[in-house]
Amino acid sequence: MQALIFQGKKKIEWAETNERIIKKATDIIVKIEGLTFSHADYRPYLGYDNSVVPNTIMGHEGAEIVTAIGDDVTKLKIGDRVAIGCVTHCNICQWCEQKAFANCTNGGFILGTKINGTHAEYVRVPYGENSVIKIPKTMNLTDALMLSDVLPTGYENVIKKIDLKQINNVAIIGDEPIGLGILLLLNKYNKKIDIYGHHSQKLNYFKKMGAHKIYDSTLTTFDVKYDLVIECVGNDRCTFEQAQQMINFNGTIITIGVFKKRVVFNLQQLWNQNITIHTGILNCYTLKELVLKIENKEIIPKYLVSKTFNKNEVLKAYETFMETDIFKVVVKL
Amino acid sequence: MQALIFQGKKKIEWAETNERIIKKATDIIVKIEGLTFSHADYRPYLGYDNSVVPNTIMGHEGAEIVTAIGDDVTKLKIGDRVAIGCVTHCNICQWCEQKAFANCTNGGFILGTKINGTHAEYVRVPYGENSVIKIPKTMNLTDALMLSDVLPTGYENVIKKIDLKQINNVAIIGDEPIGLGILLLLNKYNKKIDIYGHHSQKLNYFKKMGAHKIYDSTLTTFDVKYDLVIECVGNDRCTFEQAQQMINFNGTIITIGVFKKRVVFNLQQLWNQNITIHTGILNCYTLKELVLKIENKEIIPKYLVSKTFNKNEVLKAYETFMETDIFKVVVKL
Repeated sequence: MQALIFQGKKKIEWAETNERIIKKATDIIVKIEGLTFSHADYRPYLGYDNSVVPNTIMGHEGAEIVTAIGDDVTKLKIGDRVAIGCVTHCNICQWCEQKAFANCTNGGFILGTKINGTHAEYVRVPYGENSVIKIPKTMNLTDALMLSDVLPTGYENVIKKIDLKQINNVAIIGDEPIGLGILLLLNKYNKKIDIYGHHSQKLNYFKKMGAHKIYDSTLTTFDVKYDLVIECVGNDRCTFEQAQQMINFNGTIITIGVFKKRVVFNLQQLWNQNITIHTGILNCYTLKELVLKIENKEIIPKYLVSKTFNKNEVLKAYETFMETDIFKVVVKL
Repeated sequence: MQALIFQGKKKIEWAETNERIIKKATDIIVKIEGLTFSHADYRPYLGYDNSVVPNTIMGHEGAEIVTAIGDDVTKLKIGDRVAIGCVTHCNICQWCEQKAFANCTNGGFILGTKINGTHAEYVRVPYGENSVIKIPKTMNLTDALMLSDVLPTGYENVIKKIDLKQINNVAIIGDEPIGLGILLLLNKYNKKIDIYGHHSQKLNYFKKMGAHKIYDSTLTTFDVKYDLVIECVGNDRCTFEQAQQMINFNGTIITIGVFKKRVVFNLQQLWNQNITIHTGILNCYTLKELVLKIENKEIIPKYLVSKTFNKNEVLKAYETFMETDIFKVVVKL
């Protein structure tokens, strides 16, 4: 089989590698017909990040056909169409009992970082029947790919964590796919949702998708106050500091960005403000709900996807991903 | 009337001052028969803090007899016994609508800081019928005084904010009255509650009051992990840093201490741990519930009180407050 092999900064290509085989009775093998990627893949591609174990096939987003199942797998069969959740989990450890699947002692966020990922013709998914979701015949591949990461990230970290009845206005910091997914998910709740970013074309797209106001974060002073501030950038920029400036009394900050450095927390201002802060990645525990929401047209995942490429255009897909008007890109095999 | 007048570092004495009179139709006047104090009073007494407006009578804790009511007061009458909540609130501003009484646009945590407080023979309480609680005949003065601050602080910031079903073990950082109040409130839930402090006599008292383990925070490495960490110190010490070291995946940190400086937040470690952090002072919205709990012997407030003094011993009371085996002290007028 072939996989996308990372050969060094900005060098990635399809190359022959070992076949994927069932190693444990709970494993499944999925034939990848479509993949997408996120900043977690893009940072190593740019040489910024060494969180991927060398020679590991990257990628934690992908879908489609189950081609082999381990002996203990009873809820999936060969030929099923599935979307792969980016968090694999055993369902029996102490963290899985709490639905903290990302912290699973035997799994977690390991696809494409600690074990070979989805950027290949086939992927082995540990604890397969917990870690993928069956998709209906009517769901297209592009929609299915948005289930791997971007949609559950927003849904679990925002919609499922917060009592939205208490919220009048929302700031999303970050004009990238995660923020766009959250806007699409929040749209039905009739809140005033403002977006802070620094790509004017992307900001304009947010406006078109329902944002109340858009702000160039390099030009504003962050003096509007919000009941809910969702930080989706991480600390290459001072977005956690901005979130603290923008939060209202009694408000909630959700930080979804990936942080590599410690940050400053202004407790001298916030200690008596009844603020709540949530950190967290997704646990992929809502994939079934999200499938229904897509089926019911409550969410239209295609709005997240800016371009689609074929298998041989993968380098172009990577380069395109960081263009100033691009959100998610999809590669179809 | 007389009030405790702060004359400079470690100098406080009863002196004649103006009578308290009704200024607004929602005011009440309360004759103080008992008072207590907290670190918020003690810091200015030691000269550490200049948050009290000069010539303001300090104190936000006190009880007992209503001696005058404004024209708009209908739910209280002269002669009622009341405990004064340390947060006065109008009940009509946008924050009061959210029960964020501490942030009340027209009140908040102002007694003893922005307006004359409870350390006097009489106190004017703005929005009196919102800001005090009637106490039953059977409740003694000492129990009533624990309603002003220490009990609602623990009850509102911990018991009312957290789903305790999710919590197996708890760390309380701080061996002072707030932490002790929280231990007493949590005792009925059968959690393992460990205390971190640096006063061996106080720690031993926590053990006697039901703590699972006690740790000298100057001698330990904070490597036990907890589902809930309650920080009750503030940043003269590095307690927020310790809380972050102790928090389990999926855990909650509640910070109750008063912070005067910014702190470090280790988002590089915690961004993907599904941590929740709550900041907050009390809003005094649970006084009625707490009266019932005291009546039902679910909480025994007297365990918080180490010594009682008479009116002329107030300087001794202040000095005693910081002794190594003392929690709350009460002064009876």
